[in-house]
Amino acid sequence: MKPLRIGMIGYGFMGRTHSNAYSQVNHFFKNEYQPVLQAVCARDKEKVQAFADNWGYASVETDWKQLLKRDDIDVIDICTPNNLHKEIAIAAAQAGKMILCEKPISMNVAEGEEMCSAVEKAGVANMVWYNYRRVPAVTLAKQLIDEGRLGKIFHYRANFLQDWTINADVPQGGAATWRLDAGAAGSGVTGDLLAHCIDTAIWLNGGIKDVTAMTETFVKERVHAETGKKTPVKIDDACSFLCHFENGSLGLFESTRYARGHKALYTLEINGENASLRWDLHDLHRLQYFDYRDDGIVRGWRSIHVSDADQPYMKQWWVPGLQIGYEHTFIHQVADFLKSLETGEPAHPNFRDALETQKVCDAVLQSANHRSWVTI
Amino acid sequence: MKPLRIGMIGYGFMGRTHSNAYSQVNHFFKNEYQPVLQAVCARDKEKVQAFADNWGYASVETDWKQLLKRDDIDVIDICTPNNLHKEIAIAAAQAGKMILCEKPISMNVAEGEEMCSAVEKAGVANMVWYNYRRVPAVTLAKQLIDEGRLGKIFHYRANFLQDWTINADVPQGGAATWRLDAGAAGSGVTGDLLAHCIDTAIWLNGGIKDVTAMTETFVKERVHAETGKKTPVKIDDACSFLCHFENGSLGLFESTRYARGHKALYTLEINGENASLRWDLHDLHRLQYFDYRDDGIVRGWRSIHVSDADQPYMKQWWVPGLQIGYEHTFIHQVADFLKSLETGEPAHPNFRDALETQKVCDAVLQSANHRSWVTI
Amino acid sequence: MKPLRIGMIGYGFMGRTHSNAYSQVNHFFKNEYQPVLQAVCARDKEKVQAFADNWGYASVETDWKQLLKRDDIDVIDICTPNNLHKEIAIAAAQAGKMILCEKPISMNVAEGEEMCSAVEKAGVANMVWYNYRRVPAVTLAKQLIDEGRLGKIFHYRANFLQDWTINADVPQGGAATWRLDAGAAGSGVTGDLLAHCIDTAIWLNGGIKDVTAMTETFVKERVHAETGKKTPVKIDDACSFLCHFENGSLGLFESTRYARGHKALYTLEINGENASLRWDLHDLHRLQYFDYRDDGIVRGWRSIHVSDADQPYMKQWWVPGLQIGYEHTFIHQVADFLKSLETGEPAHPNFRDALETQKVCDAVLQSANHRSWVTI
Amino acid sequence: MKPLRIGMIGYGFMGRTHSNAYSQVNHFFKNEYQPVLQAVCARDKEKVQAFADNWGYASVETDWKQLLKRDDIDVIDICTPNNLHKEIAIAAAQAGKMILCEKPISMNVAEGEEMCSAVEKAGVANMVWYNYRRVPAVTLAKQLIDEGRLGKIFHYRANFLQDWTINADVPQGGAATWRLDAGAAGSGVTGDLLAHCIDTAIWLNGGIKDVTAMTETFVKERVHAETGKKTPVKIDDACSFLCHFENGSLGLFESTRYARGHKALYTLEINGENASLRWDLHDLHRLQYFDYRDDGIVRGWRSIHVSDADQPYMKQWWVPGLQIGYEHTFIHQVADFLKSLETGEPAHPNFRDALETQKVCDAVLQSANHRSWVTI
Repeated sequence: MKPLRIGMIGYGFMGRTHSNAYSQVNHFFKNEYQPVLQAVCARDKEKVQAFADNWGYASVETDWKQLLKRDDIDVIDICTPNNLHKEIAIAAAQAGKMILCEKPISMNVAEGEEMCSAVEKAGVANMVWYNYRRVPAVTLAKQLIDEGRLGKIFHYRANFLQDWTINADVPQGGAATWRLDAGAAGSGVTGDLLAHCIDTAIWLNGGIKDVTAMTETFVKERVHAETGKKTPVKIDDACSFLCHFENGSLGLFESTRYARGHKALYTLEINGENASLRWDLHDLHRLQYFDYRDDGIVRGWRSIHVSDADQPYMKQWWVPGLQIGYEHTFIHQVADFLKSLETGEPAHPNFRDALETQKVCDAVLQSANHRSWVTI
Repeated sequence: MKPLRIGMIGYGFMGRTHSNAYSQVNHFFKNEYQPVLQAVCARDKEKVQAFADNWGYASVETDWKQLLKRDDIDVIDICTPNNLHKEIAIAAAQAGKMILCEKPISMNVAEGEEMCSAVEKAGVANMVWYNYRRVPAVTLAKQLIDEGRLGKIFHYRANFLQDWTINADVPQGGAATWRLDAGAAGSGVTGDLLAHCIDTAIWLNGGIKDVTAMTETFVKERVHAETGKKTPVKIDDACSFLCHFENGSLGLFESTRYARGHKALYTLEINGENASLRWDLHDLHRLQYFDYRDDGIVRGWRSIHVSDADQPYMKQWWVPGLQIGYEHTFIHQVADFLKSLETGEPAHPNFRDALETQKVCDAVLQSANHRSWVTI
Repeated sequence: MKPLRIGMIGYGFMGRTHSNAYSQVNHFFKNEYQPVLQAVCARDKEKVQAFADNWGYASVETDWKQLLKRDDIDVIDICTPNNLHKEIAIAAAQAGKMILCEKPISMNVAEGEEMCSAVEKAGVANMVWYNYRRVPAVTLAKQLIDEGRLGKIFHYRANFLQDWTINADVPQGGAATWRLDAGAAGSGVTGDLLAHCIDTAIWLNGGIKDVTAMTETFVKERVHAETGKKTPVKIDDACSFLCHFENGSLGLFESTRYARGHKALYTLEINGENASLRWDLHDLHRLQYFDYRDDGIVRGWRSIHVSDADQPYMKQWWVPGLQIGYEHTFIHQVADFLKSLETGEPAHPNFRDALETQKVCDAVLQSANHRSWVTI
Repeated sequence: MKPLRIGMIGYGFMGRTHSNAYSQVNHFFKNEYQPVLQAVCARDKEKVQAFADNWGYASVETDWKQLLKRDDIDVIDICTPNNLHKEIAIAAAQAGKMILCEKPISMNVAEGEEMCSAVEKAGVANMVWYNYRRVPAVTLAKQLIDEGRLGKIFHYRANFLQDWTINADVPQGGAATWRLDAGAAGSGVTGDLLAHCIDTAIWLNGGIKDVTAMTETFVKERVHAETGKKTPVKIDDACSFLCHFENGSLGLFESTRYARGHKALYTLEINGENASLRWDLHDLHRLQYFDYRDDGIVRGWRSIHVSDADQPYMKQWWVPGLQIGYEHTFIHQVADFLKSLETGEPAHPNFRDALETQKVCDAVLQSANHRSWVTI
């Protein structure tokens, strides 16, 4: 097996999911390549060393520029807050590293375009961690759509509902809550949650033409974790939008961190002439499927327990009826990336794909600010 | 339209459901016959008059023997506690009346056999109110089984779970709680709840050969509503049994009034070689259907919302998606009874059908008492 | 009991639901007043007579103006297509009749305002058939909100999804499909389906301030049932909108007749600081409730089977666990109207309430046409 | 960290789940001990080497007796068919090894007693892989019961439904289907599936006093994978039983491999005076909870998404709303075993616990054979 030496930057929540994926992938998926946990990089030496010890990283760095200089690193995995993506990615591309970047790709479209140019110019493999494409039920949805089972599409709707910031005492900024700090995150739920919905939507249903959007910030001020001071909150707590897809279908999207009772409920539904599909993250191992061509008296929504060997990714896991979970989406994404290195066929979503999502995010925020439709 | 003059005995919960059915049936189902609320009979003059006024009965009686003598009554509808079924039914048969009798048909098999003999000798139309056969979803289940969609049957399981007698202060006996008084009810959950499960099971899956059963009385003494005294409880609070069906499938039944959280949850499931069905009373308008012959990657339990015109009874009601409820099962049963008068084809379950259920009930109680298998 | 003599105009689907409600209400709800089926009016003499015979109407009319002249009619019940509401309602008010009018109240706000003026000037009792307020689970939602259980509201979302017009062979116009004919219906899903969602939303969550909307007509031409000719379709097949409520919460609404797999799925959800509620029409007897104040380790969405005597309207029906259906919402509305006559306290939604819903409908259509936010 | 050197015997499905658990545990759970994949043993040299390579075992053996002689092995993990458990376990105990044994502990009670004696005499740590105790939702159920939330228990019911042997072409015997070969497995669903149900039941609800049972073998002959000849099937394809628990509650258990539509549906429910719990394996991350003490109008079954940090084991995983899967139960079991070495407090279920389950299994099979109640 060929080693693929990983240098990861950041060690937060995503650092854990990626490290786990690198550790697990070859136990379940056969590839020529094997990820090697070569280095992890973060500013706090002690913490990053503890993280490295836990996951078995061979070394640590405290300066990402130093990491990029090392020639024993094949892949740079960017798990930092969004405001650092651009600089690191461009430098990594220039250093000839493959790049795996957390989503959203960038703070805005302009940054994303620079990043795309850089990786394409450097010709390095690149991928963005929109992991929900690799939930087996979602991948199955893609397969069913590609097979033409749904017919002409009329509607696509998705929402991503959370409730963890209702408490006004949740701070903004810092390691745990940088997603509430516009300086680090760029936007609120738009980049954090809607970006996932948009990535999946474009993948399943094609491009988005125009949007009309609405955002809200329910808690206007929060203590900033770095300063200890109450500071205006500049991210969007909630964002919803209507849109037209290029295929003529209508879209409706919503995300919020103020939907009491929903921890991380990403739901999507697509309605076609002949069939419809529905999925949600709280029971991610199930796909709901309705086929109008079924015999009328026994027609109904089917709850498909996606755990059989003939369903995407599931042959590599256990036996029918035994479900997998959230973390496996990252393992699948690494497996597909390794396979892409073997086949030379680029893995998706790459930077260019992620830029399309970023364009919609920017249009959504612009529409909300201007209270007008925005064409993409 | 030909009038069908009803004389109902009893005005409790079942009196209400039947009266409603008679009032409603012709608004929705076209028949030659029209039920006429001719008389209602009960011992308490004042109460029965109030009931008659509410529902529009033309007259009242306080002595059922008097009711049977009237020649303006075509049908006797027996809604009394179980201990009165036999005497009334036999007398009604002898008086040449058609008979609709509440379930279970009798206190035991011996009584039931006398009743069957009497109605068959008299040649009067007769039916027993096992109303759950006429839930559209259950009738659809019957249709699917009759079409052979399930293939060879392996398993049948049913339970009927309630929780209304957990409180030891609930009395036994009297108008509201005669079901806890062995003198009035014969048995507890076996005759009240399991009898429904058994009737449906025989209808859907054929005869039962043998049983091994277990009963329990959790609250040993309760105040008797008529005497005001604490008296031993002689009914079964819970009853479960295993059985073999004549078609080689295995059965498993349970009922109780001590299943906290279940108000009136009658659930049934049948597993065949090719397909399975599942239904429950708390969402009675849905049938769950699994068909193994579906394309593997989209195979799953279908939740059929039984509200379309091509599904049993539903053409007569509203439009697809709009559900009906519990009371409609009685309307359907009356509609089918009226139709049977028109066609001459007997309606089911008749007394003879109900006797088969009674045989299983008796065998179950005998098995529980003797701690041994009992062949039916 | 005091008779309340009904004169109903129209005998379609709504004519059936109303007639059933008048027939049933006094069997279950005690009131001073009793509806009397005095007359039903429609242009086709033969058909209206058949309808009258089926339901027991004492007489028929073929000219609604004639009906209004009769002094043996107390209430005019308007079940016609929307384009006739205004003229009939104003004439009925001038004739001093009470008025029950199907929804939406009118073709547009201007008509609705004339109608409100007329009934208020005449001082006659008036009500609009937004029946979903009287689904017990929805009424319970209102009660829980009024008790303050949800706290500050952040989000309200509702959709009404159907799939019955996907087939391009469905005609427009005529008795069965006038809802697709802009001349008869005014609008498509906006007036037919969204109007229900808006009525409930205003009732539960207060007034709507502004909207941005999108409509679509997927099938551009349909045969007109009256002419037999293919004619442009001028109604909206689908409509969705975003909005702000006066209480600061965000709204998101959608309706369509192109959501394959959904027969008549009206879903609503409201998210508050402390608790959330969710309901849908396909299982209308259930309310989903999440209370954050529950002990953390056992916190979860509760599926409330609304069938207990202490829940709205249910004391009058059966016993816990036994569900009621769609038609009962009309019975409840009649019961409440009868009660309002007894108490002198107006029943809701009245014409003035329905006008508020109409204002939102008009704003939604205007926003969709102009691709801009519209303030109400 | 102290190394804990594992020597695993067998490399089938359970070999994979255990190897994964050893690989993963220290990434998520902090312990003094760290499993080391020292050796894996199986008869086929080539295959076991491939397995070792995949999972990173340091060495292989082809003779388990040889493995036991090695002094670089601390723990023997028995993943063989059931007929080898006894001999290996006793020898391992005599060799002073800690023992982790797959379930059921043995072919019958007599074997199990010998094994218990051996490990207890040797004083070695021992545990049996009844992994479902470590599903977080099931562990939470245990916690809620131990807190007394349910009150007096009335009912316990469990079933384990599969459908993978309906096809008569499935062979018996051999590596993939030894569970259908009585010589290797001892029994069919009783030892394979019901044993899980019984282990959980005893853990949650205490001892079982007596049983009445029924078994069936639907397919009477199957090709034996080792001989290629059609041979009588001697295992039970289906088994159900009724029982009394020592706490006075009633039990009902069923398992089968002929329940079309259920891949691996282990369901359990427990009904107490005050509260009830329900769980199933197809949505293993959810616990259903009903609490009668909730305010009546909002009482309902709560669907608890067990993914919060204050719920069992979940603090070590991701964030609220993100589910884990089947394999994690083994990781939890290893984590608890490691913790037990650290604290000196034995982990459960140990051999003695598993013997209690075996006693019920034996009684069930005896009851089915003799068609009589059997006291345990």
